[in-house]
Amino acid sequence: LQSRKLYDPTAPNASTGIINGRSSNILNWDDVRFTWAYPMYKNMLANFWTPFEINMSNDIKQWLQLSEDERYAFKKIIGLLAFLDSVQTDYSGKVAGYLTDSSLAALMQVLSFQEVVHNQSYSYVLSSLVPKQEQDEIFEYWKHDPILRERNDFIAEGYQRFVDNPTPQTFLESIVFDVILEGLNFYSGFAFFYNLARNQKMVSSSTMINYINRDEQLHVNLFSHIFKELLHENPELNTPRNHKFVQDTFRRAVELEIQWGRSIIGDELEGINMNELESYIKFIANKRVNQLGIERPYEGYRQNPMKWIKAYEDVDSGKSDFFEQKSRQYVKVSDVNGFDEL
Amino acid sequence: LQSRKLYDPTAPNASTGIINGRSSNILNWDDVRFTWAYPMYKNMLANFWTPFEINMSNDIKQWLQLSEDERYAFKKIIGLLAFLDSVQTDYSGKVAGYLTDSSLAALMQVLSFQEVVHNQSYSYVLSSLVPKQEQDEIFEYWKHDPILRERNDFIAEGYQRFVDNPTPQTFLESIVFDVILEGLNFYSGFAFFYNLARNQKMVSSSTMINYINRDEQLHVNLFSHIFKELLHENPELNTPRNHKFVQDTFRRAVELEIQWGRSIIGDELEGINMNELESYIKFIANKRVNQLGIERPYEGYRQNPMKWIKAYEDVDSGKSDFFEQKSRQYVKVSDVNGFDEL
Ligand SMILES: [Ca+2]
Ligand SMILES: [Ca+2]
Repeated sequence: LQSRKLYDPTAPNASTGIINGRSSNILNWDDVRFTWAYPMYKNMLANFWTPFEINMSNDIKQWLQLSEDERYAFKKIIGLLAFLDSVQTDYSGKVAGYLTDSSLAALMQVLSFQEVVHNQSYSYVLSSLVPKQEQDEIFEYWKHDPILRERNDFIAEGYQRFVDNPTPQTFLESIVFDVILEGLNFYSGFAFFYNLARNQKMVSSSTMINYINRDEQLHVNLFSHIFKELLHENPELNTPRNHKFVQDTFRRAVELEIQWGRSIIGDELEGINMNELESYIKFIANKRVNQLGIERPYEGYRQNPMKWIKAYEDVDSGKSDFFEQKSRQYVKVSDVNGFDEL
Repeated sequence: LQSRKLYDPTAPNASTGIINGRSSNILNWDDVRFTWAYPMYKNMLANFWTPFEINMSNDIKQWLQLSEDERYAFKKIIGLLAFLDSVQTDYSGKVAGYLTDSSLAALMQVLSFQEVVHNQSYSYVLSSLVPKQEQDEIFEYWKHDPILRERNDFIAEGYQRFVDNPTPQTFLESIVFDVILEGLNFYSGFAFFYNLARNQKMVSSSTMINYINRDEQLHVNLFSHIFKELLHENPELNTPRNHKFVQDTFRRAVELEIQWGRSIIGDELEGINMNELESYIKFIANKRVNQLGIERPYEGYRQNPMKWIKAYEDVDSGKSDFFEQKSRQYVKVSDVNGFDEL
């Protein structure tokens, strides 16, 4: 896979291909290869938020009133997210170097910036709720917890194969792991936080998770676009073998996600039923694989079995007011980001 | 120069060195190597702005009332900035891959994101003022204009040597080119826009330039920190030869900057005197080299000869209200960014 050149006076501004093409690398948004890039850029900017705007004072009061199981799940989920968003920052920064069109590289830099903010949000929340030493331990869960490790290694090894040997094929495969990371892996965690919120618990932390969720939806959109353009422009990659790779990889991810869900949520937590959560995970997997333009891996699972979650994910489309945070100046989201559907 | 690993369970979160060290690559802001990184992060986020918040309607009305010389300089400067910020996005993204501490990589991703916004601001302004075809031509000035090309090649070749062969030495050299790009090259352009603004011309475009200027000050701060830590941790780089390299490179940059200033501003524009501009450029060069911890290249030139510029650069410290834009929600800047001095 060719790195994009720093600059090339002999090449056009709009690139000649999504990868391995030519590009001046000077970014003129009115002269780029893909028409979906600029609306995506505007939506990503409209999503801007920072953890500093979230007032943690109520959550601090509630923290010690949570059950032992709730605090356990809370910390494990933050520990998971802290790992995933860190490797995600790195991965997306690397992807930026291989996309020929400077507008796509720019979108990838915006994405990577948002991951930086997500990462900081985990320290922000933890530093409000637990002593420094416990915060440091939570940031090290990924090194010791076997279920977390198995789950994370699955993703990170998918990324690592691309990093070690960047080819069109390993790039394609890494996008599948990306869509699993951003589009599936977070979802039992999100469900846990939204379930707390609907019981009026830890609403500020859940608001933060909601902003992250909203960003992730755009990220999945962006990577799905890139995946489809990659297959379209490089038909030699659009093989039954690669279709099967997508389905198999998602199936394995679903197994790991369910195993993780059992270990952190199990049947200990009021309001979330493990059977429902399993169906929800398969529903999300079907949705993501379909977004990649590939046949869904699971028969059925076309309906969201946890209807109440949708209200939380739709917070910015004006349909709900569960989260009572201040109005958000930069939110001017259009249809393009697909918030209307889960 | 070693690339930072995607993740390393055997390494600590806070890295063991600024380059060529070990790091888990999991970002816990309360466990990072350098104490200046988090305040810098907060200031960078506080700077958030987007071109969409800038209302161009007055500038559109004034555009055709500008003199031919003013329009010429305006377009040439935007053409210059469009090139420089594009290569800057790319360079900073690459630098992120070599900084061992994940917090510095994160800062570099934030910086790169800000460059993306700067880039978009040029299309935003031009698409308001000139027809699409002329916009596209302006984005290609860098390919054809000989003075622009000589200037840009000087920087881009400095970056290219690092990209082609990343070593501690080429990295150090590339930072010098970065501080020239972000801390010197833009300054005659800034002066041109601020001079328009003090004559009540193109105030919205100048406001945008002012936001860019404010970001660039933080970027120079960040790269100066990195430069000094690099010398501190790697004393074999802290040689008289490298000190001389900094001074010589700045001297050459000043020559190119003055040549460029003559070609776009000359003595054609009311309110800017070329002799004053030359002194101003040398003053800025002295300031930057001093920020890098190296002896200033020019004797004298310790005072800003264009006092009126300072009021424009200080717009966010509450000392001036030349720019009548709406209040900026995310601006909560502390002392750390050094806005108090030019
Ligand atoms: Ca993320
Ligand atoms: Ca810049």
